[in-house]
This record gives sequence, C-alpha cells and structure tokens, in this order.
Amino acid sequence: MSWNTFGRVLRFTTWGESHGAALGAVVDGCPPGLAISEEFIQPFMDARKPGTSRFTTQRREDDLVRILSGVFEGTTTGTPISLMIENTDQRSKDYSAIAQQYRPGHADYAYDAKYGIRDYRGGGRSSARETAARVAAGAVARLVIPEVTITAYVCELGGDRIDPANIDYSEIANNPFFCPDAAAAKRWEEKVDAARKAGSSLGAIVECVATGVPAGWGAPIYAKLDSDLAAAMMSINAVKGVEIGDGFEAARLTGEENADRMRPGEDGKPIYLANHAGGTAGGISTGQPVVCRVAFKPTSSILTPVESINSAGEAVEVVTKGRHDPCVGIRGTPVVEAMMALVLADHKLLHRGQMG
Amino acid sequence: MSWNTFGRVLRFTTWGESHGAALGAVVDGCPPGLAISEEFIQPFMDARKPGTSRFTTQRREDDLVRILSGVFEGTTTGTPISLMIENTDQRSKDYSAIAQQYRPGHADYAYDAKYGIRDYRGGGRSSARETAARVAAGAVARLVIPEVTITAYVCELGGDRIDPANIDYSEIANNPFFCPDAAAAKRWEEKVDAARKAGSSLGAIVECVATGVPAGWGAPIYAKLDSDLAAAMMSINAVKGVEIGDGFEAARLTGEENADRMRPGEDGKPIYLANHAGGTAGGISTGQPVVCRVAFKPTSSILTPVESINSAGEAVEVVTKGRHDPCVGIRGTPVVEAMMALVLADHKLLHRGQMG
Amino acid sequence: MSWNTFGRVLRFTTWGESHGAALGAVVDGCPPGLAISEEFIQPFMDARKPGTSRFTTQRREDDLVRILSGVFEGTTTGTPISLMIENTDQRSKDYSAIAQQYRPGHADYAYDAKYGIRDYRGGGRSSARETAARVAAGAVARLVIPEVTITAYVCELGGDRIDPANIDYSEIANNPFFCPDAAAAKRWEEKVDAARKAGSSLGAIVECVATGVPAGWGAPIYAKLDSDLAAAMMSINAVKGVEIGDGFEAARLTGEENADRMRPGEDGKPIYLANHAGGTAGGISTGQPVVCRVAFKPTSSILTPVESINSAGEAVEVVTKGRHDPCVGIRGTPVVEAMMALVLADHKLLHRGQMG
Amino acid sequence: MSWNTFGRVLRFTTWGESHGAALGAVVDGCPPGLAISEEFIQPFMDARKPGTSRFTTQRREDDLVRILSGVFEGTTTGTPISLMIENTDQRSKDYSAIAQQYRPGHADYAYDAKYGIRDYRGGGRSSARETAARVAAGAVARLVIPEVTITAYVCELGGDRIDPANIDYSEIANNPFFCPDAAAAKRWEEKVDAARKAGSSLGAIVECVATGVPAGWGAPIYAKLDSDLAAAMMSINAVKGVEIGDGFEAARLTGEENADRMRPGEDGKPIYLANHAGGTAGGISTGQPVVCRVAFKPTSSILTPVESINSAGEAVEVVTKGRHDPCVGIRGTPVVEAMMALVLADHKLLHRGQMG
Repeated sequence: MSWNTFGRVLRFTTWGESHGAALGAVVDGCPPGLAISEEFIQPFMDARKPGTSRFTTQRREDDLVRILSGVFEGTTTGTPISLMIENTDQRSKDYSAIAQQYRPGHADYAYDAKYGIRDYRGGGRSSARETAARVAAGAVARLVIPEVTITAYVCELGGDRIDPANIDYSEIANNPFFCPDAAAAKRWEEKVDAARKAGSSLGAIVECVATGVPAGWGAPIYAKLDSDLAAAMMSINAVKGVEIGDGFEAARLTGEENADRMRPGEDGKPIYLANHAGGTAGGISTGQPVVCRVAFKPTSSILTPVESINSAGEAVEVVTKGRHDPCVGIRGTPVVEAMMALVLADHKLLHRGQMG
Repeated sequence: MSWNTFGRVLRFTTWGESHGAALGAVVDGCPPGLAISEEFIQPFMDARKPGTSRFTTQRREDDLVRILSGVFEGTTTGTPISLMIENTDQRSKDYSAIAQQYRPGHADYAYDAKYGIRDYRGGGRSSARETAARVAAGAVARLVIPEVTITAYVCELGGDRIDPANIDYSEIANNPFFCPDAAAAKRWEEKVDAARKAGSSLGAIVECVATGVPAGWGAPIYAKLDSDLAAAMMSINAVKGVEIGDGFEAARLTGEENADRMRPGEDGKPIYLANHAGGTAGGISTGQPVVCRVAFKPTSSILTPVESINSAGEAVEVVTKGRHDPCVGIRGTPVVEAMMALVLADHKLLHRGQMG
Repeated sequence: MSWNTFGRVLRFTTWGESHGAALGAVVDGCPPGLAISEEFIQPFMDARKPGTSRFTTQRREDDLVRILSGVFEGTTTGTPISLMIENTDQRSKDYSAIAQQYRPGHADYAYDAKYGIRDYRGGGRSSARETAARVAAGAVARLVIPEVTITAYVCELGGDRIDPANIDYSEIANNPFFCPDAAAAKRWEEKVDAARKAGSSLGAIVECVATGVPAGWGAPIYAKLDSDLAAAMMSINAVKGVEIGDGFEAARLTGEENADRMRPGEDGKPIYLANHAGGTAGGISTGQPVVCRVAFKPTSSILTPVESINSAGEAVEVVTKGRHDPCVGIRGTPVVEAMMALVLADHKLLHRGQMG
Repeated sequence: MSWNTFGRVLRFTTWGESHGAALGAVVDGCPPGLAISEEFIQPFMDARKPGTSRFTTQRREDDLVRILSGVFEGTTTGTPISLMIENTDQRSKDYSAIAQQYRPGHADYAYDAKYGIRDYRGGGRSSARETAARVAAGAVARLVIPEVTITAYVCELGGDRIDPANIDYSEIANNPFFCPDAAAAKRWEEKVDAARKAGSSLGAIVECVATGVPAGWGAPIYAKLDSDLAAAMMSINAVKGVEIGDGFEAARLTGEENADRMRPGEDGKPIYLANHAGGTAGGISTGQPVVCRVAFKPTSSILTPVESINSAGEAVEVVTKGRHDPCVGIRGTPVVEAMMALVLADHKLLHRGQMG
C-alpha cells in the first residue's frame, strides 16, 4: 500500500515523481495565526537544491515553492497548506536505457515486484527528489516550534569523521558539505572529487541536534520521540541506520557510565551532567538537547558497471548515467533537519492536546 | 499524548503497568480462520519471562496468557483478539523509597514533567514489563505470515561480539543469552555475573533475521519497511539505535562495495550476490532476508549510588533496589522477534489490500 | 477488515463477544489528573444494563466494570485505561438451533460472507452487548468535558412521538423508557407490552442534547463535528439514520426559515434566535446546544417465524428464541449519550492541540 | 484541528479555498495498473460544475482537472495521485462587504471562534467549492470498483417528492436537477425559479443507490459501511441528515415488517424479498443494493436581509450578494456519488487486505 502521509496531529502528505510535472506537500493541522510566505520557505529549499556545487548532482532545479492554500494575507489560517514545486530540468531520455534494467541498490526491482509497473524516469516516486517536498513542509513545522533551534551537519563522510573538538556551527554554511569542522571539510573536497571522478560514490553520517525542546514532549508507548524520529529518518532515501543519543555506543557502556546524572537547577528543573540518552527518557523529552544520528549509504547510481538483471530476468551490466550526487548524505542534511522539525512540531501539538 | 496502538491494518494496542492488576494487548485486523490457542502463545511468553536464570531479574511471573475474545472454537474469527496477562509477583514496597526520586536513565522525571503524575511502582507504564503484551501480540502476528521464519539473537554483549563464523542457530536455545555462538555465551556468563555482582549493568546488540519474505512488501514513502521496523524497534524499552542491513557500516562503503549485485534466478527472480541493504530497496522487500540490528543501552536500574534530584528539585543519591535485569538486551531478544513479526504481518496485509 | 478503534486523539478500542468470557474497552489519550473510580463508572453501566424491567431483555448481567490500568491512587495517569466487564449470564445453548441459520436483519449472513466463520452465540461480535464497553469508555470521556451536560431520551417509540411541550428532563429517570414525557411513557408501556406478547418488536428514535459546548470544537473538513457524530451514532447496533439539528426537516425549509439569526450577547458572543443547525456550522460548534437524533430499527430478533436460508443455502424458517429487547432503542439511549461524550471529548482535545 | 484526509486504506486529502489560486486532492493507496486520464475525470467534474443552468450559481468555472503525479503513460502506478483544479472566476470583491459580518447558517462565526482568523472570500475553506476536489478523487475511486454502479438523484426538493413509481434513471441527465421523475423536474423548475427570484433558497434530499456491491464489504465495529457512509455524507457542505435503507422510517416498522426475508438463490447466495436495511447488516454489505439518503439544508446565502452580528459583536443586517446556488442539494448530487464511490473503494481494499 502506498502511504504518503506522516504525522499524527500535524500531518503532511507528499506527492510527485522525479520527472513528473511537479511535486508537493499538503501540510494539515498547522495552527492558525503564523506569519508565513514563500520567501520564508525558499532558503530551506535552496539549502537542499541540486546543482549548487560540483559535489552535488548537476541537475539544475530552482525548486521554487508556491503556496496554493491555507494562507490568507500572509498568515496561516489553520486549513491545509498546499505547497507545490514544479520540475523544470527533467531529462527523461537519460533513463530510457535503463527502463528495463534493475539497478542494484535502487528500488527498481522492488517496485516492479510490488506494483508490476513503475515510472522509471529518475527513479520515479522512489527518487530523493521527493525530499524537496519534505523540506518545504519542514519549513512550515519550524514556525510551530519557535522555541526550538535545529542544527544538522555531516559528521562523517566516506568513513572520515570530524573531530568533535573542532565543531563550529558557524562553519556549516562555509563549505559545500554542511561540515562544522573546517579541517574535515578540506579533506572531504578531495575525497568526494576522487569518488566523482572514479564514477564511484560515498556514504555519510548526519548528526542533528535540537535545543530548546522542553521536557514532556513525546508519547508513550508507540509514539515515543525516539520511535517517531527513527521512523522519520529511516523514511529518507538511502538511510540505513538511526541512533538517538549515544545509540550503538550506549550498548558498550556500563550502567554507571551511561547514567545521565542530574543536579538541582532552577525551578526544580535538573541540570544534567551528561546526555548519553540524547534528550529523551521513556520516549519523552527531558529538557536536554535532542540528538540523533543518521547513516546514509553511498549513492546507488554509479558509473562503474555493475552486474544485474533486467525485467525479463536476463543478465545485464548496468551503468547509471543520469546526473547524480556522489554522496547523497550531503544534500540529505537539510532533509534530516526538516524531519526533526516535523516530528517535534507534531509532538508539541500532541502534548498540548492531552495536557492543555 | 498517550499513543498505545501500533500498526496500520493489523493493529495492536497494549495497556497495563508494571505493578497493576494485569496487562494486555488487543490485536485488531487479524484475518479469520487461523488456528490459535493459549498453548500456542505461551512458549513465546516463556522465552521472554523473567526469573528463568540468574542472568535475568528475579521477579517471578508465570506470564500466563488468556485469550478473552476474537477466537471461537480454536480459530480466529476476524474480530479483535484480547490477550491478558495477570501480574502476580509485584512487590510494590520495593519502590516506596524512590517514589519521589528521579532515577537517571529512567523515565521518572520525563513522565512527571509531562503528566504531573506517575505510577512509580516498578516504572509503571514505562516498565519493560509492557513488552510481555507485545510478545503475546507477536505470536498472533506469526500466524499471519507462516511463510516467514524469524530468528533473533544477541550478537554483542557488553562490547563483546560474537564471531560471525561461529553462528549456529541451534545454539540460541542452549544458553541463557539467546547467543548463537557457544564460545561467546561462555564468555558472557562471566561478564554478566561480574556486572551483577558489582551492582552494575551491561548493554547489548540484538540482530534479527527474517527469511521467506517475498519481494514486494513495504509501503512507500512513509511506511517503508525500514521506517516501520525502525519505529517498532525504537519503541522497545532501552533501545537507542536501529540498523537495517549494514546500517552505519554502509556509510563507510563505496557505491561499488555496497551494490547488491543480481544474477538471473528462477522465475525471473534475482539471485543476489550480497545483502548489504538488509532485504529492502526503496523501503520494499527484495526477496532477500530482512535484517535489522537493535542497540540496547545498559539497564538503568543499578545498585551503584548515582547523583540525582527528587520531585522537590533537591539533590539525592539514588540506589535502585528492586529486582532487575543486569542486561535488558537479553530478554529484549524475544521482543525484537515479536516486533519484526508484527511489522511484517501488517505489511503483508497492506500489500494484499492494494494489490489483490 | 476489523476496525475496533474510534477517535482521533482520545481513542478507544473495544473487544469482546456476546457470549465470550468478557468484553472491554481500552481508552487511550485520556488526560492525566482526573479523579476516577469503578464507582463513578458503574451508574452509567447500570442505566444500560439488561434485565431491569420487563421492557428489556431478561438476560441478567451485573455489568460490573473493573479498571485494570491507567489509574493510580484514584487518578488517571495519562496512560491507557483498560476497562473489563465479565459476562456472567450467557446461555449459549439457546443459540445452537440457529448456528447454521441466517436470521433476517441480523449480521449472520454478512459475517459468514465476509469471514467464512462466525461466533454465532448471541450474535458474537455483532451483538449489542458490545455497547457495554462503549458506555464504560463514555464515562471516562465525560471526565474530560466537565463543562458539558449531555442528555439523551427516547422521543419516539413505535411511531408514537412525545409532545415537545411535555418534555421534562426530570421524568427521564422515572420510567423504563428514558422518556421525558410522562404521558407518552404511559402509552408506551402498553405498546411495548403488546409487541413483546406478540413476539414482535418496535423501533425508536433517540434525541441527544449537549449543552455547554463552547464555540470552536470540530475539525474541518473530514472531522466535522457532524461527521464524527454521524459515524459514532451509525456505528451503534440497529441504527439506520442520524440527524443533526433539524436534519431531514431542514431540507423542507426555505433559507429564511432555516437561518439561525444572531443578536449581540455578552463578550461579543451571539445570542441565537433559533437552533435549526443543531449547534454546528461548517462542522464546528457555535456555542449552541449540540443536538442529534438517532433512528433505531426494531429489534431483528423476533419470535414470529420468518422465511430465510441456512448456511447450506437451503430454505428455513427462523424463530429467534434467546432473550431479547422488544425495542433496542430504549437501551440504546445511554449508548447514544456515551458516543456523544466520546466525540465531544475527542474534539476538545483536538481543538486544544491545534490552538493551544 | 484541521483534518482534511478521509479513508483508511484508499485515503484522499483535499486542500484549497474558494477564492485561492487552486484547489485539489491527493489520492493515496490507489492500486496500480488502472487506465486513467484527465479526460476520464472531466465529465464527473462537469456534472458538478457551476454555471450550467439558471438553477445553479452563475460563477463560471471550467473546473479543468490536471493530474500532477501517480500516473505514468496513462496508467496508475500505485503512488499518490495529485489532482489540481485552478480557480479562474473568483470575484473576491463581492465579499468585502461581509468580511466582518457573520452570515447566519454559514461557518463564519464558528471559524472565527475556532481559529481567530478566516479567509472570508467566498467562505474560504468552508465553501462547497471544496467538493470539486472530492468529485475528482471520486472519479479515481470508481476505477477501483468497476463491479459497482452508482446512481444518485434528487428525490425531494423544497419538500416536493418524486413519485417512486415514476423513477426512470435515464431521465436524470435530461433536466438540471438530477431528477429521475420527469414530472417532478417540471414542477421543480417553477419552484426553484420562484425561490431564486425571491432571493430565497430551498433544501433537497438526495438518494444514492450502489448496485453490484458483493456481500462482505464493511468493517465492524467502527468502520461499518453505514458508519463510514454517514461520516462521508455528513462531511458534505449543508448536509444535516443521513439515512441508510429505510432510515428513520425503519423506526416506525415492526420487527416483522422490517425483516428482509431471504430465499435460496444461486451459489448459496440469498434472494432478498425486501431491502429495508439498505444493503448492509451489522455494517457489512449483504449483496443487495447499498442505499442511502442525504438531507441538504437550503443554501444559507440568501438575498433576504437577515439579523446577525459582526466580528465586533455588534448587530448588523446581512445580505449575501455573491453568486449562489438557490438549492445546493442539486449540485450536491455528484458529490454524494463521489463519496459513495470513495467509501466503497476503500472498503473493497480493506476487505481484500484482511481476507486475501
């Protein structure tokens, strides 16, 4: 079954294919009275849009967002907000060669096995282009949670980690990798250039930190903040792993090491001495920064020929020409931010519904 | 908001607290005509139940399941199946000392911050005891997917990994750790004994493999198999990380290394030369084994005194007496299996609904 | 598909069959901090329970409710509230004669056509006994909306209407028909006695009025108050029609007649000169009483022999012995109240979620 | 909370305001492989579109539908189908006079009470113009249920009923009232002309019959066919009543009169001697025609001055100029058909999911 809606109270539905006329999102349940405009949303789109450096796909899309409903005289009205982005630079002919081929790592075979039909142009619905609609929806979500600041960055690329001691958020916008470590960004230039020239691709890990989340958001049991974040992040193209707080490393700590000790703070609120838990306990926010990490596999579209089969079940050798990101994790960074915003905004409203 | 239902078409709702009269699950949407009995469900409960070895909590619960509805003359009728497990060995007095204390790593503070009230006995609703209800529901789900075989095991405990070359599924039932590597199980005995004696605790990583899943299950975009599995696993108590296939390691591979090459097989189906993706592409099953890995943090309840605060915002030192698992990941293993079964059964029905 | 959950933010799930061990409801999303007890719920159960007069079924059930979770020291905790009612007076042998027969007006044939199996004892899941669970859930919902007063009564029985001029709410508890018109109640005694003696049955119309609902509850477009009320009422056994406000009569008015004129009142709120709309406009409450009317068909279980078929497709003559209500609409009255409470409580929380 | 999605497995979301740039629907969960085109959808739009006779609003909209996604080479792909209709004939200045006035019978006051803001142009989101998006979605739904034939018609207008003996479906397209009784249609011309000239408006009742629905669709308990149809119909603008089968008249029958007797038919299926139940039993289809009736109140926008208040709480006299339908029930007819198609298609897929 197709299931293109996410969220419980603040819900968004995305639609559109890589090479269709347009794609978009309908954001439902947004509170009224929020000042919004296409100009507010556009910078988020620009951060994700392709063709901005040699380290991303050369497809050129302006990704201009149009608000088609839900806003009156610059203010949200509480009715559904329809956001549309027209596709302008589709070159579908690039794909005709692979219409009948199943690219390894892509959804080609799985879609055919499921639906018996697929829009093969640029991956159709399974293309990462769908995430443009999420970024637009995420911009709306940010307006719902002005108390929260969300920052995502690439913390590892092709196996090369940043140095935590070098993290400087102001560097993130200074390089084409959303990298907070200037020295690492320098190294990555070479790394990605080499992969691109070799017709290869690289994976990356994105870390996302949300500060300003008050204690009490999150909904036990099956809408734990951890659970909804994991679902949100795992729904992003090429993502294969999600951690909250220390994640897998927590499994290597003892109970004493992992305990986030507390001391008395203001208003009875705790001062935490550590944040191994990543800002949640029992699925509910603790008042600490919410931290998650997201693993992106290397782009499956590579120029190197790969052994595969076609729709007739015959052996073929696949070379994916098109225009692709050598590392999808880079442009995945604004998408991770958008999903964090959408989950937190949903939980703020959920919490308010039950608690008044 | 409280959100105690999981699933889209096959939905289950759990209820109950650690020290309440009972806990249970209502499974809705189960197809009719499946042979079922309390005797069928019980072994799954027994695999998870406490008090079976010195490596788990000494609370003794028979965890006997009663089927209260939805079954007529030994067969499911298509109506909701109500499953109840009575609590028999609550010792609530164990907890009176910590009624006003916030145990680090526990949901105590977060629940109070959210609800202003909590059932502090044994963690109340946030207790891992809730997972007994999931295991019962998971047993029902298995009946929906007889074509699938699910196997979960602990693959790392306290940082000590099994040797993949030693994996022997028949060993899993031969030790108290759900460990498929006899040599590792031997080492872990000492490890867990030491932690227990030190009043400490350990984390673990559980791997789960589902074979027999046909290509085509999974629902783009926001009900990708990866996404629903991530949500399901992250909703388990103490889980802080989820990987599908190679997970975080995939982020360190190149596109060529990560490609799951295909060769022609029978009936036009591919023979895969690798399974880095863990059985999914674009969120849809590929016909390969579905593989996920789940990180459990160390049990937060430890005897070692830890600095914290109480509900009046004052400094306290917390010692959690009660009876606890030195490593919750162990008994988490049958829960991971149950969640895998519930997600796959749901997706089988979802797929059938759309595709006929 | 079986779909036994209702509600969006305040959700309840019911389970159980007419002649199973028990039935119940799980209420999820209830705010914490509400004082509740089994004693509070019981009077609502008693109002609906069978065997209280000769005008209802002679099955005798105490319908004692047990609260199994979600309440700690007499107060809701925000976690799911599990409510259970044990069945005590099942006489399943009454039904053996009709195990293979399809009773006209009953769900027997439809269930078999859908599921290929059914629990034929007392109608199984399709029995009106399921509504006991709703009444228990409805009692919880009332705690969420203390500002609202809900009153339901039978306004027509067997085609005999009450006189609107005679409506006196204090009479409702004085007769076995929930009738607010003492004179009508007198007439109905004879009417129902005659039907009962003739082995026949009668229909009824129940009206429900909720006062104290503030303007602003209701969620356009597909969760309009009208829409959710219609769904709620139509889900009650034997209901075949729902009206909000003037309902079908509104279709016979002109625009001028139907207009609910307003005059300035306090705090800028309107004083309405009429309430043809039944308290909603565009699906949102207007501050006027919310009014709906619900049509119950006559009980399908009658002693008079009726032509039908059996599961082998052969002609049979059906006589439904068992113990039945001569007019299900009567005991439907507390159920209508419960559904009104559940819908309004859900919408109060929904509104609060979006609007703060 | 705004809630603009309807359906369980086949879900659609609508968006857009009366005088915004466009409006639309996203249909999710539609099976793949169905032949579809804008040309297929358009006739359904044309049946509902305004300005086709003097008996409907003089606003002129072509209501041209564009398919923006989910269709590849003329065939559905199983991904979300985005449908957009641009607004071309908005005359927003018509409404400036009533920007601060609350029109009785309209949602003006209720929206302001809820949201504190509203797009007052033409009723904004609460305008019946939203139903254009439903008709487009309904056209898609029809493709899912080719075995079903749906026919809706006005059976009563301004209190004047058709003669059941005169019903001739082929007449429905021969008059501007969707009236199956040629004689009644003749009478209604005068009736509607008179109301229009008097600046008044009329109500209507629409009947809808679906044949070809097999036994077994419908989902107990809270997704009974009756319940979902009631919700669907009550969500249509101006609707205040819904009946399934005999509806309120059933409450006036005895059990014997109301019994839909059965005789043996082919393949073990029953031949029914009556259809008082309207094609459902226990919320599940019986194989008989599914019949419902829907009451539309008279258009609230009338030229006759009406007493009301403005947003400052002051007394005003409201005259609604704009361009309005003298009887919204007429153009509501294709909307009723669309909602019937959407509910039945959803239930076909639901049934298939659980039953295989």
